[in-house]
Amino acid sequence: MAKKKVRIVPLGGLGEVGKNMMSIEYGENILIVDTGIMFPENDMLGIDYIIPDFRYLLDKRDKVRGIVITHGHEDHTGAIRHVLEEIEAPIYATRLTRGLLEVKLSRGGMLKNIDINTVQAGEQVQIGPFGIEFFHVCHSIPDGVGLGITTPAGLVVHSGDYKFDHTPVDGWPTDFGKLAEFGARGVLALLADSTNADKPGWTPSEALIDPALDEVFTNAKGRILIGTFASLISRMQQVAKVVSRHGRVMAFVGTSMIENAKMAGKLGYIDLPKKSIVTLDQALTMPPSKVVLMCTGTQGEPSSILGRLSTGTHRSLEIQPGDTVVLSSHPIPGNEEMIHRTINRLFQRGAHVIYEAIAPVHVSGHASQEEMKFLLQLVRPEYLIPIHGELRHLKQHATLAREIGIPGERIAVVENGTVIEFQDGKMKVGQRVPGGYVFVDGSGVGDIGPRVMREREALARDGFVAVHLSFDPTGKVLRGEPQLVSKGFVFVRDAEELFEHARNIIRDIVSSKGEDDLESRIEGDLSKFFYAQTKRRPMVFVFTSKTR
Amino acid sequence: MAKKKVRIVPLGGLGEVGKNMMSIEYGENILIVDTGIMFPENDMLGIDYIIPDFRYLLDKRDKVRGIVITHGHEDHTGAIRHVLEEIEAPIYATRLTRGLLEVKLSRGGMLKNIDINTVQAGEQVQIGPFGIEFFHVCHSIPDGVGLGITTPAGLVVHSGDYKFDHTPVDGWPTDFGKLAEFGARGVLALLADSTNADKPGWTPSEALIDPALDEVFTNAKGRILIGTFASLISRMQQVAKVVSRHGRVMAFVGTSMIENAKMAGKLGYIDLPKKSIVTLDQALTMPPSKVVLMCTGTQGEPSSILGRLSTGTHRSLEIQPGDTVVLSSHPIPGNEEMIHRTINRLFQRGAHVIYEAIAPVHVSGHASQEEMKFLLQLVRPEYLIPIHGELRHLKQHATLAREIGIPGERIAVVENGTVIEFQDGKMKVGQRVPGGYVFVDGSGVGDIGPRVMREREALARDGFVAVHLSFDPTGKVLRGEPQLVSKGFVFVRDAEELFEHARNIIRDIVSSKGEDDLESRIEGDLSKFFYAQTKRRPMVFVFTSKTR
Repeated sequence: MAKKKVRIVPLGGLGEVGKNMMSIEYGENILIVDTGIMFPENDMLGIDYIIPDFRYLLDKRDKVRGIVITHGHEDHTGAIRHVLEEIEAPIYATRLTRGLLEVKLSRGGMLKNIDINTVQAGEQVQIGPFGIEFFHVCHSIPDGVGLGITTPAGLVVHSGDYKFDHTPVDGWPTDFGKLAEFGARGVLALLADSTNADKPGWTPSEALIDPALDEVFTNAKGRILIGTFASLISRMQQVAKVVSRHGRVMAFVGTSMIENAKMAGKLGYIDLPKKSIVTLDQALTMPPSKVVLMCTGTQGEPSSILGRLSTGTHRSLEIQPGDTVVLSSHPIPGNEEMIHRTINRLFQRGAHVIYEAIAPVHVSGHASQEEMKFLLQLVRPEYLIPIHGELRHLKQHATLAREIGIPGERIAVVENGTVIEFQDGKMKVGQRVPGGYVFVDGSGVGDIGPRVMREREALARDGFVAVHLSFDPTGKVLRGEPQLVSKGFVFVRDAEELFEHARNIIRDIVSSKGEDDLESRIEGDLSKFFYAQTKRRPMVFVFTSKTR
Repeated sequence: MAKKKVRIVPLGGLGEVGKNMMSIEYGENILIVDTGIMFPENDMLGIDYIIPDFRYLLDKRDKVRGIVITHGHEDHTGAIRHVLEEIEAPIYATRLTRGLLEVKLSRGGMLKNIDINTVQAGEQVQIGPFGIEFFHVCHSIPDGVGLGITTPAGLVVHSGDYKFDHTPVDGWPTDFGKLAEFGARGVLALLADSTNADKPGWTPSEALIDPALDEVFTNAKGRILIGTFASLISRMQQVAKVVSRHGRVMAFVGTSMIENAKMAGKLGYIDLPKKSIVTLDQALTMPPSKVVLMCTGTQGEPSSILGRLSTGTHRSLEIQPGDTVVLSSHPIPGNEEMIHRTINRLFQRGAHVIYEAIAPVHVSGHASQEEMKFLLQLVRPEYLIPIHGELRHLKQHATLAREIGIPGERIAVVENGTVIEFQDGKMKVGQRVPGGYVFVDGSGVGDIGPRVMREREALARDGFVAVHLSFDPTGKVLRGEPQLVSKGFVFVRDAEELFEHARNIIRDIVSSKGEDDLESRIEGDLSKFFYAQTKRRPMVFVFTSKTR
């Protein structure tokens, strides 16, 4: 019986939003589900993105039988390159997800030697001891799947990112029948998306956006610029339909937008009528009332298309009075300020800006509370592991589950790195393995830790002062003036008096003291002096040299 | 006729949220309305707060006849000290606002020599050529007023921060009658709060919170901690009532909370029954089911009470399983991440956390769209100047006004520093005066500008490397090893190889080159080298010294 132990180890996506990754293990076999990244928070200074800490898998890398990717969003795919650098295993993904993975891997020059298997919803694939049934789920990207994983310990259902949309853009609703069939068969554990666990009711259908866009198109006299994520393939389709209905043409702006549209069109996931698609250059020669531009930048990123338009720094495109800009998106928490700034700047340049608060030009891709309860009722799992969300979302998901009768002890609200074991139909929450943040900064992966972050915080807050002293051969008499360099502390041109005073302090210390502890004495006294004068605490450090 | 020209010059609060300040001028007479601060955004590194740029007033300081403060919130009062340091003029405020100003000024040791006049809603005061009628408005603090300002050019109405609450905590609704009377009298211009211009409908009454708090109290088995702003005096009253109803006692935690409660109690603005108020020390000896603690920290500030409780760093108080924490507040945009982190950490420590998304434990203090339209219909101004809001809010306020029939050319959507002139019943939007941000950092006011901010940004992103070189008397031969100090760039202990390589580059440059441009050559080459190796761009700078 001991052999029938299945371990589930979340390495990402539990207690946070993003970098979703999970390890499911039986004996000498490991299945990885998703390899996502997470975007840095405002106080993660200088960090490009964050990947899961999968050190735990490194000494078991030869046991990994496969990597299943549930859909093509960055928070589920973005770390694939980092994982493949360490772990050699075949990837399983649906056609569109595969296409998006290939775009990503080919940019890194990693496409050859990679084994990717195309699967489709409704299909069953055996990966080692795991029988995987892929079932379709609606989300804000087509071709997303959830997983029914038959393990030796029982059936484990993974929801992926899902919503219950009865009128999705691609006409393909979530596979309720399959979920009910799992429920009838008997589900040991459900791992289910918790992202919107604090949103009451049902998430509106994508179809809600159509009339809102229609109204925008009816009222707009000039050009229409629509901002969204480059991966929001469904939104491209919705916009293309409205464009045709209103006799306009559309151009995609920005590399990722163009590449993704091309790929999704080629694979048949969106239908873009040839006569309504033009290039940006063509669009710029046409009357504004005929033109729609689809671009990135809904999160206020300064280097995105909308970001550059808002500051007037795009190479070939400029906001003109009469433009209507639509932000078809929801702020990722932490980005609100930058988004609002972008909106204000677009207004300043004469555009009319329509965003979520003004009109329903965006809906969430994730299930809300009533859908989450519905999923639980369909699947009727013995155990629930809330996934994909901050701790507050997981807790709220657990509250919902208790409300519909799942006993609290059958719900595991855990964070990344917590080993959950299933054996003889029982769940055990076990030890912790590493499951934290791995910062990617430039070409460095994981080398930036708390110490460097603290230095960046201190430098960001008050800058630094570097002091350079030359001594004569006795090491006791200064040669020349103390040199001071300061950045991020004060406006140097106005602070000559402050620095002259600082030089006097240094000279006093040098003349009254021997060499002992000179540097730390100067650092200490200057820190105190600068704080007394400015109520700021720059880093202070001293270099000394001695002539021989 | 030229004498009848009135100028309105917004110095804060237009095109931004916070640091509200306005100058209203007639001939040789100036009236200041509000002197607020604004809190720094996430990329304003190291800045403590922001005050209005009132340089424009400095050469006219002897013309300022009075400073009217509409209510006691920081975004209307916080810069009073900075303004009084430059401008000597009597202050006019209601009793509670005066009390809060006195607390603030006495902390700065500025209370003596300050002339504060207590006014009350319903009263009329003549300040130079301006006849000011104070009228009561509901807001999330008691004793707020709006202003009817009779100027030689006509009647100007300033809404203050307001909402139309029919069941306010203090039972004192906004003075609709006065607004209607202004409308009947004929209003030249309305300056009206735009904060919630993108919120449809009516802002719910404060009374909505009572049943939500009742439910929390009914369900909570252990202690209840309620977080809110220390200036949200009305919320203190609401909590005190629920505390009595449920037979608990309450303690205020934190200096600002205790001081404000004491002051508001003394002035009679809140009624705190003696037997239900205890000190924190007393509360800690009582059964958890009897205790309510009211504290600060709803914006995720690490040094606030809730912030310290979430990280387990409060001196005398600790979260215990069974605690219920209520965040009775709304996130200030930009604070979402820190707030969510605090919530997650409180959950981690075993508390149950209830926040706005989970239950209606907070309502806004500002009018929503229907109230804004109602105000316009009551006051029926000839001209509208939307105030208090980012540009997007001002624009949306203008849209609402046009919808109810105010012609677009009678609405001035302008940003800080735009001079608006009224003469012969006509509005003219004139030139710009300074109206930007003045950063306060430590004891420095306005000395931190774009250059220092850019340095802080660069240091925050990638840190720096400082190089120190000693030369022999020829200035061509290095004495000893190049010394390198680096902070915020790489984890130095793991980067010895990188720095050794850098030292080789320096030695090569020194041996192949003369003294000319040596420093900038080394800075350039090292920058390139570090970028190639790490894809990071630390600041690099070089000190040199030469023995004599």
